[in-house]
Amino acid sequence: MNHFISVEDLSDPSGEYEEKLKSILALAANYKQNPFADESLGKRKTLGLIFFNPSLRTRLSTIKAAQNLGMQVISMNTNQDGWALETADGVVMDQGTAEHIKEAAAVMGSYCDILGVRSFPGLKDMAEDYQNKVINGFVKYAGIPVINLESATTHPLQSLTDLMTIESLLPNRKLKVTMTWAPHVKALPQAVANSFAQWINVTDHELTIAQPDGYELSDEFTAGAKIVNDQDKAFKDADIVYVKNWSSFHDYGKVGDFPEWKVTAEKMNLTNDAFLMHCLPVRRNLVIADDVLDSDKSVVIEQAGNREFAAQAVLKNILVNL
Amino acid sequence: MNHFISVEDLSDPSGEYEEKLKSILALAANYKQNPFADESLGKRKTLGLIFFNPSLRTRLSTIKAAQNLGMQVISMNTNQDGWALETADGVVMDQGTAEHIKEAAAVMGSYCDILGVRSFPGLKDMAEDYQNKVINGFVKYAGIPVINLESATTHPLQSLTDLMTIESLLPNRKLKVTMTWAPHVKALPQAVANSFAQWINVTDHELTIAQPDGYELSDEFTAGAKIVNDQDKAFKDADIVYVKNWSSFHDYGKVGDFPEWKVTAEKMNLTNDAFLMHCLPVRRNLVIADDVLDSDKSVVIEQAGNREFAAQAVLKNILVNL
Amino acid sequence: MNHFISVEDLSDPSGEYEEKLKSILALAANYKQNPFADESLGKRKTLGLIFFNPSLRTRLSTIKAAQNLGMQVISMNTNQDGWALETADGVVMDQGTAEHIKEAAAVMGSYCDILGVRSFPGLKDMAEDYQNKVINGFVKYAGIPVINLESATTHPLQSLTDLMTIESLLPNRKLKVTMTWAPHVKALPQAVANSFAQWINVTDHELTIAQPDGYELSDEFTAGAKIVNDQDKAFKDADIVYVKNWSSFHDYGKVGDFPEWKVTAEKMNLTNDAFLMHCLPVRRNLVIADDVLDSDKSVVIEQAGNREFAAQAVLKNILVNL
Repeated sequence: MNHFISVEDLSDPSGEYEEKLKSILALAANYKQNPFADESLGKRKTLGLIFFNPSLRTRLSTIKAAQNLGMQVISMNTNQDGWALETADGVVMDQGTAEHIKEAAAVMGSYCDILGVRSFPGLKDMAEDYQNKVINGFVKYAGIPVINLESATTHPLQSLTDLMTIESLLPNRKLKVTMTWAPHVKALPQAVANSFAQWINVTDHELTIAQPDGYELSDEFTAGAKIVNDQDKAFKDADIVYVKNWSSFHDYGKVGDFPEWKVTAEKMNLTNDAFLMHCLPVRRNLVIADDVLDSDKSVVIEQAGNREFAAQAVLKNILVNL
Repeated sequence: MNHFISVEDLSDPSGEYEEKLKSILALAANYKQNPFADESLGKRKTLGLIFFNPSLRTRLSTIKAAQNLGMQVISMNTNQDGWALETADGVVMDQGTAEHIKEAAAVMGSYCDILGVRSFPGLKDMAEDYQNKVINGFVKYAGIPVINLESATTHPLQSLTDLMTIESLLPNRKLKVTMTWAPHVKALPQAVANSFAQWINVTDHELTIAQPDGYELSDEFTAGAKIVNDQDKAFKDADIVYVKNWSSFHDYGKVGDFPEWKVTAEKMNLTNDAFLMHCLPVRRNLVIADDVLDSDKSVVIEQAGNREFAAQAVLKNILVNL
Repeated sequence: MNHFISVEDLSDPSGEYEEKLKSILALAANYKQNPFADESLGKRKTLGLIFFNPSLRTRLSTIKAAQNLGMQVISMNTNQDGWALETADGVVMDQGTAEHIKEAAAVMGSYCDILGVRSFPGLKDMAEDYQNKVINGFVKYAGIPVINLESATTHPLQSLTDLMTIESLLPNRKLKVTMTWAPHVKALPQAVANSFAQWINVTDHELTIAQPDGYELSDEFTAGAKIVNDQDKAFKDADIVYVKNWSSFHDYGKVGDFPEWKVTAEKMNLTNDAFLMHCLPVRRNLVIADDVLDSDKSVVIEQAGNREFAAQAVLKNILVNL
C-alpha cells in the first residue's frame, strides 16, 4: 500500500527525501516528453475520483494522467449536503450525516484500485479542519491506495508539479524561492501554501514566505522557511516568486484586506529576473497585475500543464506496487 | 430484447425461476473470481446510465461492471426539476415538463446499446409512484434493453446481489431469512424491501418480514412471506438478518418513529448466529448498533462489493442477445 | 488548427461551400452505416467537453461520436455561478468572476487535443450575447481546435445534422424548406434557428421563415431567406417543415404568446407532404400537436439520432489535421 497524501510519502526509511524526490521529478519530466510511454501499465485498473468540492484543473489533469497510463477512470461528484459523511466514532447518526466513512470508504475501495479524494476545509473550525478527517478516513478504511486531490490542509499534487516546474526552468541550482501572500476577496484554504512550504523545505532551495502580519501559516508547514512581513524584502533577488492568497490561520478563516500586496511589475523588478508562479485560478489585477501575468517570466500556464505529468508519475509509482 | 426490470425477467416461459436464477448467480460468482473473463464481449457497445436521483454505489458498481466487459459507459445526471419528463399521453405541455418520455427515451436509445435508468418515488402519491411511469416509459420507447437502477418500487440489481451474497455465505441450503424494518429519520422508498421480498420468494428460502404495525409492505411483493409485528420472534433462529428502513406503504410515505426497532447485539443473539445484511448507506446506531455492524457476522461491505459482479452478470446476459 | 464554430468553417478559400459541405455530409452518412470505420483514428487523443449549461442530447451524441473514433472523452459541467469566467480585458477581478478566460482556455487546452464548449446566452443583453465572448475566448486562447456545442447565437452541430437529415430524406433535390416559429412558455435562445437559416442559405434549397410580427431573427443569419408573418403561406407546398421556438431578437428575450402558431395536422396538410423536423426537446401539444409528431412524416427521432454521425464527421475532419 502506498498512498500519496503528503510529502512524507516520498521520504526514505531514513527520513531522507533527495533520492525519491529526484526520481519522481525525473519520471514526471519524462512523461512530459512521452506521455504514452507506459500506456499499458494501468490496463484493467480503475482510478476512482471522489470530489466533495468542485474541481476542474485537478479533475482534468488527473483523468488525463490516468488515461495516459491506460487506466479506467470513474469520477464522482458529491457534496457535503447531499452525501454528508460521518467521521466520528460511536455517534448516533440521526442528524445530517447519511453514511459513515467506515462504510463509504470501504465500499468505494472495493470497486477501484486507486482512489483520489478531494475534501476542502470548512474554514470555520481550525481544529476540525486540521484533523483532515475525510481524507484520513479514506486512508484508514478504503483498503487501497489513496491520493490526496487537495485536503483541508494540503495539496501535494500541486506541490509536486511546482517542484517539477521549478526544476525544468532552473535545473540543478540552489534557488532563492519566495512565496508571497496576495490579496483576494474570498476566504481561501491554506492548503496550496502549506504544501508549497513543506515541499520546498525538503529541497536545497532557500524559502522566504511573506505575508501581512497575522497571516502567518501554521509552523507545522513553514518550519525551515524565513518568515517576513515585508513583501519588497522578500522579492529582493528572488529566482522564483510564487503567489498565493490564503485566509488567516491564526484568526482562522479571516479574509485579509491588504490591496497593496498585489504583485506588480515594480515589485517583480526587485527580483533576480524571477519566474512568476501561481497555481490558478488567479483573479487578474486583484492578485497579480496583467502585465506581470502576461510577461515572458510568467509560467502559470506551463505550471498548470505540468499537473498532468506530476499526477501521472504519482499514479505510476502506485501502479507498479499494486 | 431482454430488459432487467424485475425478478420476472428471470422466469422461464413456464413461470419457473430455478434454472435462470441458478445460472445468473453462478455467472456473478465466476466474475467475482475473474472479473475480466469476458473483457472483449462489450467491445463497441455503449451503456448509457441516466440518473434522475443521486447514486454513488449503483453508479460506481455498474460502471465498473460494464468496463470489466469492455463496454463504453456514458453516465448522465439529471433531475426532475431540470429535465422533468412528461409521462402522460395527450397533455398540453405548457407547465413544468420539458420533454415527453416518448422522445427522451427514443433519443437516448438511439445513442446507446443498453440503458440503465434510476428514478425514485416522490413518496407523496402511492398510485403515481407504483405505476413506475419513468422506467416503464423507457422500456416502452427506448427501443433497446433497459436496466432498472432502482425504480420507484423495486431495486432488482440489489436483490440479485443479495441472493448472490447469501448463496456465497451459506450455499445450497434452505435458510431462515428475516427482513426487519429498522428506524430512520427520513422517508425512504420501499424499493429495496419490496424487491428483497419478491426475490427471496422465488427461492426455497423461508422469509419472515417484521415491521411495526402499519408499516407492512404491499402484498404484491410480500406474497409468500410470513409477516409479523414482533421483531424478536422474527429474529429467533434466523440464518440471515436483512435490515432496512422503509416509509409506510399504507399511510403512504409516513416516517415511522420506533427507536426500539434498532438492531442490537442482544437481538442478534436470538438468531442462529445469523449473518447481518444491509444494502447501505446505513446510519450507525440509529438503524444498527456499532457492535453489530463491526462484528464478524456483518457482511455489509462484501455485499456492497458484490454489486459489481451482479451487474456484470446482468450486462453479460443482455450483451449476448444484442 | 481547424475549429468548428460556424458554417464559415466549411467554406473554401474562394468562399464556396458546395464541395466541403458535400464531403462532410457524405462522411456523416457513411458513419451512420459504419460507425466504427475509423475506430483507431482518435487513439491517444482526448476530447474535452465543457458545459456551462445543461446538455443531454449534445453531450451524449458527441461523446458517442468521439468514442466511435477511439478518442478518450472528459466531460465537465460547470456553471456561470460556480466558475464564472471573466472575458473583459484589464478588469480588476474583485467581483463575481473567479478566472479569466485567458488562463481557463489555455489550461483546458493543454490537457486536451480538441475542446467542445457550450455556453448559452443570458437573453438579457443582446449586444453582450451576440459577441459570443465565451466561445470566442476559447478559440482565441485554447491553442487547440474548438467545437461549438451551442454558443449564445449558433448551434452548427445541430444544423449539420439537419442538412444530413434532409439530404437523406430527399436527396439531390432543390427543396422548399420552411422554418416556422412555434409557441413556447419560456424564453429560448435564437441559436438553433439562426444556424438553420444560415446553413440552408449555403445550399441550393429555398428557405422561407415564418414568425409572428416582431419575432424576426437577426438579418445577419437570415440573409437569403424569404421572411413572412403568415404561417399558412409559408407551409404552402413546403417539402420540409422545421419547427422551432425562439424568443424575440428585436425586443430581446421576450417570450411570444401566440398559441395559434402551434403546428397542427391541418397546417401540415397545406404542404407538399412535408417531413416534420424539430431539434428536440419538444413540448407536445404546445409546439406541435401529438398527431403531427406521431405521424409517419415526423423524423424528429431520426434527426436526433443523426447528431452522433454529424459530430463524428466534424471530429474526424479535425483529427486528420492534428
